[in-house]
Amino acid sequence: MEKVRITLENVTDLFAQFLPPEQTARAHTLFLKRLASIMHRFYGGKMQTLPKAGVFGFNWFNVWYTPGISAISTAIRDNNDMSYDLTNRGNHVAVVSDSTRVLGDGDCSPPGGLGVMEGKAFLMKYLGGIDATALCIDTRDKNGRHQAEKIIEFVKMIQPSFSAVNLEDISQPDCYRVLDVLKKECDIPVWHDDAQGTACVTLAGLINALKLVDKELNKVRIVFLGAGASNTAIARIIIQAGGNPEKMIMFDSKASLHKDREDLKADERYYRKWELCEKTNPEKIKEHDRALKNADVLIALSTPGPDVVKPGWIKEMAVKPVVFACANPIPEIYPYAAKKAGAYIVATGRGDFPNQVNNSLGFPGILKGALLARARKISDSMIIAAAQSIAEFTEKRGINPDNIIARMDEVGVFPREAADVAGNALEQGFGRVQLSWDETFELALRDIEQSRKAVHVLIDSGVIKTPPGEIIHEVFEWTINEITQHKGK
Amino acid sequence: MEKVRITLENVTDLFAQFLPPEQTARAHTLFLKRLASIMHRFYGGKMQTLPKAGVFGFNWFNVWYTPGISAISTAIRDNNDMSYDLTNRGNHVAVVSDSTRVLGDGDCSPPGGLGVMEGKAFLMKYLGGIDATALCIDTRDKNGRHQAEKIIEFVKMIQPSFSAVNLEDISQPDCYRVLDVLKKECDIPVWHDDAQGTACVTLAGLINALKLVDKELNKVRIVFLGAGASNTAIARIIIQAGGNPEKMIMFDSKASLHKDREDLKADERYYRKWELCEKTNPEKIKEHDRALKNADVLIALSTPGPDVVKPGWIKEMAVKPVVFACANPIPEIYPYAAKKAGAYIVATGRGDFPNQVNNSLGFPGILKGALLARARKISDSMIIAAAQSIAEFTEKRGINPDNIIARMDEVGVFPREAADVAGNALEQGFGRVQLSWDETFELALRDIEQSRKAVHVLIDSGVIKTPPGEIIHEVFEWTINEITQHKGK
Repeated sequence: MEKVRITLENVTDLFAQFLPPEQTARAHTLFLKRLASIMHRFYGGKMQTLPKAGVFGFNWFNVWYTPGISAISTAIRDNNDMSYDLTNRGNHVAVVSDSTRVLGDGDCSPPGGLGVMEGKAFLMKYLGGIDATALCIDTRDKNGRHQAEKIIEFVKMIQPSFSAVNLEDISQPDCYRVLDVLKKECDIPVWHDDAQGTACVTLAGLINALKLVDKELNKVRIVFLGAGASNTAIARIIIQAGGNPEKMIMFDSKASLHKDREDLKADERYYRKWELCEKTNPEKIKEHDRALKNADVLIALSTPGPDVVKPGWIKEMAVKPVVFACANPIPEIYPYAAKKAGAYIVATGRGDFPNQVNNSLGFPGILKGALLARARKISDSMIIAAAQSIAEFTEKRGINPDNIIARMDEVGVFPREAADVAGNALEQGFGRVQLSWDETFELALRDIEQSRKAVHVLIDSGVIKTPPGEIIHEVFEWTINEITQHKGK
Repeated sequence: MEKVRITLENVTDLFAQFLPPEQTARAHTLFLKRLASIMHRFYGGKMQTLPKAGVFGFNWFNVWYTPGISAISTAIRDNNDMSYDLTNRGNHVAVVSDSTRVLGDGDCSPPGGLGVMEGKAFLMKYLGGIDATALCIDTRDKNGRHQAEKIIEFVKMIQPSFSAVNLEDISQPDCYRVLDVLKKECDIPVWHDDAQGTACVTLAGLINALKLVDKELNKVRIVFLGAGASNTAIARIIIQAGGNPEKMIMFDSKASLHKDREDLKADERYYRKWELCEKTNPEKIKEHDRALKNADVLIALSTPGPDVVKPGWIKEMAVKPVVFACANPIPEIYPYAAKKAGAYIVATGRGDFPNQVNNSLGFPGILKGALLARARKISDSMIIAAAQSIAEFTEKRGINPDNIIARMDEVGVFPREAADVAGNALEQGFGRVQLSWDETFELALRDIEQSRKAVHVLIDSGVIKTPPGEIIHEVFEWTINEITQHKGK
């Protein structure tokens, strides 16, 4: 094989040169997983701790530690809120998981989620200028069973050290109660990115999609496919943002949600689903095709596709159908197939198709805004403010049916989002400080720029090593071999 | 006041120019506390998180996060020990406190310990090349009472995310049981620096002191003043290292320890003290002056002085008495007074007197060694190996009665200590890897050098700001005013 220069930017195109089209997606995933294994071992993980304060000779430890530190301990003792000024608490988020539902890989045992949580911390720092620590916890009892109660206890215990908690990859139905109990009982924001983060970014995409099809949120008929933590949160937030629940129908893996679903009424762990049974689908429509007839929007976060959403359903939708097919790694219907069936706008969870609904657009800005306001919670209205912020940012730089939402490398979105969220928190009286929009914007911008500068300064100085360029080439060749040798498998 | 250049190095001398001798110590402490308040606010705390892996374009998040990360999640799921290779777990220590005994300031409420714990994390990184996260936890029940049981639960829960836990500033008697239960039930090292760290560094100093007075550890008579977590651990470790318990007498605040102390026998929370009642002081000597008569060594970690240790006691000790007067902030007897009473060697906890017994010499090297061996525990023999390593390092560069132990700016001590500790762990079969002394030494040296380089690169690039030089001058003037205006108070 000819030695071509392969960067992560052109690797998809290169696979297309060497492999038939039906194998390039699999090859790309295989390539990224192999490269991830090698690079995670090369660096020994992804996140570290470093001082944010200077040390100008060893005597400075008399300031940073004993005896000077006594002034800090007693100041915080006398007013706990001083911990936001005098320690890093104010910029520090705990990324907490029991590793029971690690991205697409299910229960990975407690340490199995560390790679994902460090990744999340990486994104928070690089995109949002937030310090974050991965905390994968063991919540199993003596019989090896996970106890949701222990996540609640744990988060309450760590509250004094953090200014927000990001819950992640906790399995259903525990995740509902864990979030709701903690939101009520904690004095710092507790955020469940799988639910609230996805809801925020989906709403952002929906707002812009509706602009393009010239429809209004309170008038559209929306069908939800899937009733997991994400989709129930999406429905709830869309309703809060003005959507009409009577025009909504949601399906779980068994049937549609409506008032006769005695199974959901009976199991109180599924109270979030039952709420939607009570509010939506007043006609108790039970069939997918009937539900989608004349629907304006389909939001699918169900099972990996590609044949979960039928082209026939889309054909029956109202004029200019909007389809979110967000299962990972394979959308419920491929964008080309959805478009062929008449979809006007198609969004997915993937970066290699147009209109990626990517949580990374949400949590860095939302959490940064909450931290800057020193907020006591993240309310639904803060989530909606973030969605509107993302939608407006994207609209201003120009939208079209294949480009309804910013990508995460459009980094201008984050400080604005942070300022909009902080402003909303302060308006509602959830903050601990008073700052103007301009002030939060400047602080967010400063921290985000400093974070990136720090990373690049560490790379340039060799503290973070640059991996040998041939690694990417070797992994590329390995992938091609793997795919061509195991064609039939 | 003339504008003189004041650095933290010459500030003590400068106070001596402006203030009478009896006020300089107080002035220095006041100065450091004031400067700490200003500088902690200036930086907003001391520690941050940063990537340790490079990002060379946004597509790298497909490697560090989804979809590439799946390879990491499943690899760790299938073999939990892979978390040491593929995440930062292997270099990450949790610094856990319930903030019930924060250095000299007692119970500071849960967030009140954050400044100290971030300081500890700072020292771990700068001296030991270790990543560390401050976790001050709320262990109070509904009545506001601290529950030691919750520290145990908490540490067991966070085990999957860290390769060691440093317990800190937990009040007596909880600290004994918390440490012993966790040592037994955890599969990563749990370290209580107040007890074990102090024991290590005190033993290091004692080893060199005995060389200078030409006495042997198994033959010397040792009196311990104070029976808190630190001093009981010191006695236990000295016995493990070869000290003869029958030649030891320990005093708590009530009386000497011996077999007739029914109060200690009855209260099982004080089992560590009872163990010493059983082993030491066979003659049941009850008076301080009788105990110290012909004693070779006095180790005091009791209440702040200066008149806690009486000169008369030292006068009655054997030839060339060795006195450790380690209460903070004021030693039980000032070094000059101890020397006047005949002490040949005097050590204290303070950096402004000779022979500082400073925990910062111990924990960075010990923990680094334990991490490099991927040890399952830190045994007494590893602590003794660290003490011997510190003592040998110091002896090689030269010792004398006013210089028995290295200072923390003699940074050569740490990689050797780490290698000695790792070697001991591996010999005993407590490790998860096989490495030679040279290998662990090189790894420790690399990580420590990289840590310092990172800090200085961040300072030089302006990511960590350098504070305006006049701050130190202003704080100096403020201190002088404060002292001279409030002379009588």
